[in-house]
Amino acid sequence: MPDTRSEPRYDVIAIGNAVVDVIASCEEDLIEELDLNRGGMTLVDEARADELYAAMPPAREVSGGSAANTLAGISTLGLQCAFIGQVADDQLGKVFRHDMRATGIDFDTEAREGEPATGRVLIFVTPDGERTMNTFLGAGQYLPAGALDEELIASGAILYLEGYLWDPEEPRSAMRRAIEVAREAGRKVAFTASESFVIERHGDDFRDMIDAGLIDILFVNESELATLTGKDDFEEGFASIENKVPVLVATRSAKGAVASADGERAQVAAEPVDKVIDTTGAGDQFAAGFLAGYAKGEPLERCLKRGAIAASEVIAHYGPRPEADMPALMNAKLG
Amino acid sequence: MPDTRSEPRYDVIAIGNAVVDVIASCEEDLIEELDLNRGGMTLVDEARADELYAAMPPAREVSGGSAANTLAGISTLGLQCAFIGQVADDQLGKVFRHDMRATGIDFDTEAREGEPATGRVLIFVTPDGERTMNTFLGAGQYLPAGALDEELIASGAILYLEGYLWDPEEPRSAMRRAIEVAREAGRKVAFTASESFVIERHGDDFRDMIDAGLIDILFVNESELATLTGKDDFEEGFASIENKVPVLVATRSAKGAVASADGERAQVAAEPVDKVIDTTGAGDQFAAGFLAGYAKGEPLERCLKRGAIAASEVIAHYGPRPEADMPALMNAKLG
Repeated sequence: MPDTRSEPRYDVIAIGNAVVDVIASCEEDLIEELDLNRGGMTLVDEARADELYAAMPPAREVSGGSAANTLAGISTLGLQCAFIGQVADDQLGKVFRHDMRATGIDFDTEAREGEPATGRVLIFVTPDGERTMNTFLGAGQYLPAGALDEELIASGAILYLEGYLWDPEEPRSAMRRAIEVAREAGRKVAFTASESFVIERHGDDFRDMIDAGLIDILFVNESELATLTGKDDFEEGFASIENKVPVLVATRSAKGAVASADGERAQVAAEPVDKVIDTTGAGDQFAAGFLAGYAKGEPLERCLKRGAIAASEVIAHYGPRPEADMPALMNAKLG
Repeated sequence: MPDTRSEPRYDVIAIGNAVVDVIASCEEDLIEELDLNRGGMTLVDEARADELYAAMPPAREVSGGSAANTLAGISTLGLQCAFIGQVADDQLGKVFRHDMRATGIDFDTEAREGEPATGRVLIFVTPDGERTMNTFLGAGQYLPAGALDEELIASGAILYLEGYLWDPEEPRSAMRRAIEVAREAGRKVAFTASESFVIERHGDDFRDMIDAGLIDILFVNESELATLTGKDDFEEGFASIENKVPVLVATRSAKGAVASADGERAQVAAEPVDKVIDTTGAGDQFAAGFLAGYAKGEPLERCLKRGAIAASEVIAHYGPRPEADMPALMNAKLG
């Protein structure tokens, strides 16, 4: 086979939800009153989104989306990134695109005309800092495979995909195609399971992809690991798949994180945080820190440490993307 | 003359800009690069707004507008409020309306169809916390006198107007009519001069209204006072108009504030703040605290103290509206 592989132009290319977060702090009671899935992510239709919005306290709007947040974190650390995702041709779509580009990320997927609007996530943040997300995917659920820039995908060292976007059919097909393109170009495929409900619905797909060796780097949290492996014990679950993916990263909230790569294991404690304000983006930024280190070829433990530092920064303020001078923070904390 | 005055249904009715703030922190250099009016407010057209937005770092969107911010502060302190202002029928218009209503404020001015879009203010916040505002008024410049609900205006104990909205013609006529309605109903008229450039353009209008006794409560800052009175010395300027308005309130940033009412003077020091993050809304929230006290019939010094407390809360975070539990904060700090 002729080697058509060239030096990658981007460090990371991500495909993900293109949504704007609508974030409000609220009292504990409201979560129950509105019958929300506390601490989780729930897909809602537009009518339910309107209903929840009407009941929501005053809010702030910031660009979100799991893989988009991760990419923003990676870009902030100085790596070259590009994003593929579907916004509508509306004000929130422009906000999302602006924030990606202003972070230094290339984002050229064309906006989709007409309804539905750009997706939004209504996030209720309780006094303990826990976020409860309600997502109206909007235009994002229609990302067509035809919108993929295959040359772009082939030009990224790592293709990063989010499980959330596995749920709607069009983006799922698009991501399957993207994986093929990346692998044919000899690139790595990184995947975050995103949320247990996604695994409940699409676990067979994920397990098939893992068994087929399509995933090089897998991110899970504790509950996703349990759902994916069917094993409630963390150690058992971790051991059952660590040899099936070249790199496995499992985050454990306050208990830190564990990673395994080619038979080597490493772990890291959670970074101390003065006060948790809003946990939105914690997992996304952990992945950002880890991938930034990984892309630079750093040792596993240092990648984990970067993840922990990035996560600790984002949960200390509202919003899912870094606000601090991240290279400086990394330098200070990594030593 | 038959007394048709009834007990007011609202404590404060405000007419103001209905805009969404787009807030980004930025380095000092960018202010110069973009040739911005550091620390001030500049009206821009849509093309310039687009140009500035393209050059802006990632941002957060929150509802703003000077009088709207003040009203949000007053409402948070438990008073009954209604707002009149012009949004377009678009996503940012819905965001603005949501945030007003979610704060407990009645806001029923119908959205305007078609272009231009809902107004927005691009706010660049430098590391010292100073905000530099660039306002595209959008739909707001077309608030027609016909959109005024005169019955509503007559039902508020205080009508509050912002000078910023004196600049475009339609809202200016609408506000003139609103003042007539309020005075005929025996209500108080409160006015904030907003910004020196407004006084430079419309100072004669303001001085005429003051001389005609149309303004009961006037808010100015130091530079507005100088522009309005033509006197650079604060004391001279203050003395030159304090007998022309029943209540005069002059804010002096870090030097606190001075008020005069019916020959009585009071003053207050600025509240200490750990770290100034974003000065956006400082004047708006000072007015909110003051008016809330005034509406409750509190002594002048206590009204000023409320203003200082409210201002200190808002400059300690991004965004122009209170985020703390304001009644609790007032209780704690007023003693």
